[in-house]
Amino acid sequence: MRPNQNTVAGRRLPRLDGAAKATGRYVYGTDVTLPGTLYGKVLRSDMPHARLTRIDVSAARAMRGVRAVITSADVPQVRYGNAVKDQTVFATDTVRFVGHPLAAVAADTLEIAEQALSAIAVELEPLPPLFDPEAALAPDAPLLHPDWQDYVALPVIAREGNIAGRSRMRHGDVEAAFAQAHRVYEHRFTTALQHAGYTEPRAASAAWDSTGVLTVWSNGQLPFEVQATLADILELPVSRIRVVVPGIGGGFGGKLRIGVEHFAALLARQSGRPVKMITTSEEELIAAHPRQAAIITVKTAVSADGRILARQGRVVVDCGACSGSGPGTGAVALQCLVGPYRTPNLLMESLAVYTNKVPSGSFRAPSGPMANFAVESQMDIIAKDLGIDPLEIRLRNIVREGDLGPAGEVLKDVSIEECLRRAADAIGWHDRAAEPGRGKGIACSWWMTTGGSSAVFIKLNGDGTVALTSGAVELGTGALTGAAQILAEELSLDLEDVRVATVDTLHVPYDYGAQGSRTAFSVGNACRAAAADLRQQLFALVAAQHGVPAEEMMLRDKCVVAGDKRIPLADIARQQYTGGGLVARGTALNPPPAYDPARVENHPLPVWNTPSFHAHAADVSVDTETGEVTINRYVVAQDVGYAINPTYIEGQIEGGVSQGLGQALSEEIVYQDGRVLNANLTDYKMPTSLDVPPIESILVECPSAAGPYGAKGVGEPPCIEPPATIANAVAAATGLWITSLPITAEKILLRLKGEP
Amino acid sequence: MRPNQNTVAGRRLPRLDGAAKATGRYVYGTDVTLPGTLYGKVLRSDMPHARLTRIDVSAARAMRGVRAVITSADVPQVRYGNAVKDQTVFATDTVRFVGHPLAAVAADTLEIAEQALSAIAVELEPLPPLFDPEAALAPDAPLLHPDWQDYVALPVIAREGNIAGRSRMRHGDVEAAFAQAHRVYEHRFTTALQHAGYTEPRAASAAWDSTGVLTVWSNGQLPFEVQATLADILELPVSRIRVVVPGIGGGFGGKLRIGVEHFAALLARQSGRPVKMITTSEEELIAAHPRQAAIITVKTAVSADGRILARQGRVVVDCGACSGSGPGTGAVALQCLVGPYRTPNLLMESLAVYTNKVPSGSFRAPSGPMANFAVESQMDIIAKDLGIDPLEIRLRNIVREGDLGPAGEVLKDVSIEECLRRAADAIGWHDRAAEPGRGKGIACSWWMTTGGSSAVFIKLNGDGTVALTSGAVELGTGALTGAAQILAEELSLDLEDVRVATVDTLHVPYDYGAQGSRTAFSVGNACRAAAADLRQQLFALVAAQHGVPAEEMMLRDKCVVAGDKRIPLADIARQQYTGGGLVARGTALNPPPAYDPARVENHPLPVWNTPSFHAHAADVSVDTETGEVTINRYVVAQDVGYAINPTYIEGQIEGGVSQGLGQALSEEIVYQDGRVLNANLTDYKMPTSLDVPPIESILVECPSAAGPYGAKGVGEPPCIEPPATIANAVAAATGLWITSLPITAEKILLRLKGEP
Repeated sequence: MRPNQNTVAGRRLPRLDGAAKATGRYVYGTDVTLPGTLYGKVLRSDMPHARLTRIDVSAARAMRGVRAVITSADVPQVRYGNAVKDQTVFATDTVRFVGHPLAAVAADTLEIAEQALSAIAVELEPLPPLFDPEAALAPDAPLLHPDWQDYVALPVIAREGNIAGRSRMRHGDVEAAFAQAHRVYEHRFTTALQHAGYTEPRAASAAWDSTGVLTVWSNGQLPFEVQATLADILELPVSRIRVVVPGIGGGFGGKLRIGVEHFAALLARQSGRPVKMITTSEEELIAAHPRQAAIITVKTAVSADGRILARQGRVVVDCGACSGSGPGTGAVALQCLVGPYRTPNLLMESLAVYTNKVPSGSFRAPSGPMANFAVESQMDIIAKDLGIDPLEIRLRNIVREGDLGPAGEVLKDVSIEECLRRAADAIGWHDRAAEPGRGKGIACSWWMTTGGSSAVFIKLNGDGTVALTSGAVELGTGALTGAAQILAEELSLDLEDVRVATVDTLHVPYDYGAQGSRTAFSVGNACRAAAADLRQQLFALVAAQHGVPAEEMMLRDKCVVAGDKRIPLADIARQQYTGGGLVARGTALNPPPAYDPARVENHPLPVWNTPSFHAHAADVSVDTETGEVTINRYVVAQDVGYAINPTYIEGQIEGGVSQGLGQALSEEIVYQDGRVLNANLTDYKMPTSLDVPPIESILVECPSAAGPYGAKGVGEPPCIEPPATIANAVAAATGLWITSLPITAEKILLRLKGEP
Repeated sequence: MRPNQNTVAGRRLPRLDGAAKATGRYVYGTDVTLPGTLYGKVLRSDMPHARLTRIDVSAARAMRGVRAVITSADVPQVRYGNAVKDQTVFATDTVRFVGHPLAAVAADTLEIAEQALSAIAVELEPLPPLFDPEAALAPDAPLLHPDWQDYVALPVIAREGNIAGRSRMRHGDVEAAFAQAHRVYEHRFTTALQHAGYTEPRAASAAWDSTGVLTVWSNGQLPFEVQATLADILELPVSRIRVVVPGIGGGFGGKLRIGVEHFAALLARQSGRPVKMITTSEEELIAAHPRQAAIITVKTAVSADGRILARQGRVVVDCGACSGSGPGTGAVALQCLVGPYRTPNLLMESLAVYTNKVPSGSFRAPSGPMANFAVESQMDIIAKDLGIDPLEIRLRNIVREGDLGPAGEVLKDVSIEECLRRAADAIGWHDRAAEPGRGKGIACSWWMTTGGSSAVFIKLNGDGTVALTSGAVELGTGALTGAAQILAEELSLDLEDVRVATVDTLHVPYDYGAQGSRTAFSVGNACRAAAADLRQQLFALVAAQHGVPAEEMMLRDKCVVAGDKRIPLADIARQQYTGGGLVARGTALNPPPAYDPARVENHPLPVWNTPSFHAHAADVSVDTETGEVTINRYVVAQDVGYAINPTYIEGQIEGGVSQGLGQALSEEIVYQDGRVLNANLTDYKMPTSLDVPPIESILVECPSAAGPYGAKGVGEPPCIEPPATIANAVAAATGLWITSLPITAEKILLRLKGEP
């Protein structure tokens, strides 16, 4: 399972993309400017819900320097989307949120493009808006998508009225358990819209060639999904669309779905020129793909000694004007809301609901922090009520090796106890002083390593190094460095001997992409398969030349060791110039474990691959005069299976916790009457380096059977527990649980003053 | 051997690169301009042979807008080259030809760079020059490379003094045969320096990244050789150098060797900025890599009935100031000078000689036209002298299936008789009218299909199309369309279902490159291997899903046919999104046939792979008042083994004949006292479309065992026979053989007037 040599894997090596980023020479999507490019801009609705009665672009089209103006009338009448195809490029007859695209312009300069937007005449007749997802569920609520039954959706998705997706998980009999329990607790939690907070705005350049092939330079996370979505929108086969990803300044899930690529492509087609587009901060905050706001109710029955007897929950995610990732996010919230706990009776339901707000998306561990905030806050409330130590109540309920998960799957490589104990030990759980205004909190969770296929090409270069070609982008996480470490380890090379190609869908193998904590795991496995293919060829070549059986060979220190001979890879590589190229391929797919279909209903992701386990603990102070929270210490114990590169994993943990602390304490896209009040990066408060304490990381290694050398997914988990951990620590400091995110100083102060 | 279906291979399909080229949207090397680029220029010597006593760049460096000035003092003191490492980036102490690089400048604009060149002070002390290669062979000739013994060379290369390479082929006893023969003929032929005549000048852009990796955008034919040469010059491992070839406006061998890539790379390194360079027409004509001028003597003994008894020959190729491709060209000339004839006694020698002229290179069938001009002119002279029909004397002497070639190799798939007879029939050989000033000529030859390895990656796209990634560039020949046709045929796809990636050495498999008539042959074979790999995976996937044995499956009409099931490739392709990527690889290498080492001496290419055979015939008129030659008809019968795409092969034949007619009639880089007199495209006379008659192509298909579906190399042969064919036709019209190329009107007229 583990590598034999461990000379590269497992080491704290610098990231392959580090130097270029540190020196400012890395090329991002926004850096691409094609010769003769035009600049594109989008005209957006300033009403949340309205009938579009007239749009007149003739004045804009007549402006000097304007090369293309397009509206719904100029583009294919196609609905696209992920789970439910409920999006159009532009509003057709109905505007559904402030920011809804109405038209787009390409001009010689950005200034002319902006002037042209002002010259477009738009008439909108207001319609009654729906901002509250629970109001949207009312039987008499107006339908925001009256034609929803005509939309194409994945077969698994259950829809009705304003519900874009409903999923359920159940087993046992919760009603009976509630009736017999020692106590039953029910709470309601709310969470806020959160922007993914990537540094580089979404950007695209697009150009068509003379054969009708579109090339898009994108900074999206999923080049093959950008390709597929453009294929839907443009009604072209996928291979007529080439997506090149030069580099990405962060994504965190917010760049999973198409950004401005389709506008650039359509404007380029109309103008016959390349078109470049970059979103503004305002566009990002009113019309990106933020993390959904959610309303979560959870009802838990326990025995007198704090054992969970039953749990019932409902998750309402506010999708906004289009479903986006909402149906999937809501569904996955159910597993998170169960938590890593034995739950003999279960009834969970998620509802993804349309409102007249920004269409939401997927942000790092979609649903994780919201559901964890609910379940882990409630665990502490129960513990306090029953007089049980919060750590102890968790230890009494956590799942153990071989237990069944919520879908009836057998859980393996379970490490939650070790994570809890090590986080608790590190924060000094057992010597919590009773200090007013100061407290420690703990929370734990589990999360999946997302499946989907990866394939790679590798080739041995003439100097004995290898080139790695993968369809997964380097999102900024360092995950491709991890995959390269695995490849180097397998071939007895140094990390710097691996050259990674950037993604161009024309030639890179398909990859399910840089999402879901899967890149190092899945690309790493594909690298192992490719290395095996290359080794087999190397050994066959050496066997033919040196008469040593291939079975007796191995790779060591960049050499094929064959008996007492050591043949450097570089020497074999040079033979390719006369003796045939040495190229190899590898594919990997981690199939999901078996589960009980009777336990799930309309769930697009009913069972999790290779789950990871983790626990966070914080020591906070609360200023009782201002409500301000200061984080004194923050500890993460995370099961990573095998730490391919401890430094890059710690970086992931530090980044994820920072985002989680933002969600916990300050981040919220604030809506009033359908308009965003804080559509700029001054008023939308992401934590800065001054706000984030040093994060202490403990890497637990409980190896998985499926991952490379036992690795599990590591990228998303760190942002799951911070809201619950902070909520519990604040409660420990104040005696009060804040049940709505973010836990602002204002909310704490109001509660301290006795307001509800 | 041949394809089963033949739905794509063998068809006259439009070239994949055709539309983009026809519409002007194809991207060539010269089109690449990096953001923030500087423009580079080279200062060149205006003396042919001199001591460089002083070079002062301080004034140039001080100029506003000048960002880098480099001389020999600023670059690694490295010698590089192909067979003999006798080149340096700049002249160090000795200048060896007019055009020899002395310094290079990068500046904000081309104008500033040119001004900066003028500001460089250079002092040269003239040395006695050598322009005549035969004079350079004299025992007391000064050494142009006094340190030649210190130069690194391929082990096979034999050198001495001004001889950069000497090769020999021999068997039997020529002296004895000469002594006993019916007649012995000896003639001397000379040929001229010819520029490769590509449309796009050599160009490069270079940029270094923060990790010390150099990327060069080049329009060279051999990206991996550009990479290897830059690695030599910059003293870096090859994988630190990335060569991207956007597109090439012709090469014909003239872009085999490095052009301006090294200057751009060195200037970029000194300036810290990207640098772009494009050669001017003058630079092309004084300092590119033209076809060598050659002096060929051939002595042939024959029986009374015209059968060859012995042949002795000497080829002196004028390398110019550096050996370039000279040693190899000279050596290969020997096989060409033997011709496709049974030759029981043989003694051949080639000498590649330094002079103070432009370093020469490889131009389409290097050595072929010169050697063929000699041997085929002499065949006609002999025929006339013996009173034998020129066709008949060839038929009496040509090699037959199973004969031995000059190195003792067994010749297979021999088709020279069919080529001769079909060319003769087409030109109306047997009804030649005795018309004054008009005549018909015929000539024949053989040529190799160059070996070396090719490897490809392929992947099945989500829409059932495939992507092909090869390290061979599309040079303008259409050969990659041919390879794509083979891939499409193997996978039952349409040609337009194959998407070909452009070359980037970072990720494309190594390929010996677009040279030596090998691309469609060798990449085509690699495509067949990759298709087999993909089929195996497809069939295994279908077998697992449908329970049909893989052995019973086949591909038809873009479907896997499994029993009575037909599963579209597109359906299987879509499974890759959940079921693992479908990627494949293929490699190909055509090993040379066995030969007798005793027959060859210091020959880098002693035996030819998969030879092709061909015959040309022309009907010309000669204006006896002006000496002007008009070509009435021109016929080519060429054995292509299997015509993968008859239209593209005809294009190759038409282009090659045009270049051969240029060499035959008008093209010559004219030197006087070491200076080129016609360094512009007005005075250097390449044929235009008005000069070239319609070319009639006859594709003979004598399949080879090694090529895809039996194909043989087709690219180089068409330019071999035109000089001899025209010389023989002019002789038929005038009774006079012109033995020096080009056969200008002036030479004909002087001979008609009785001058020697």
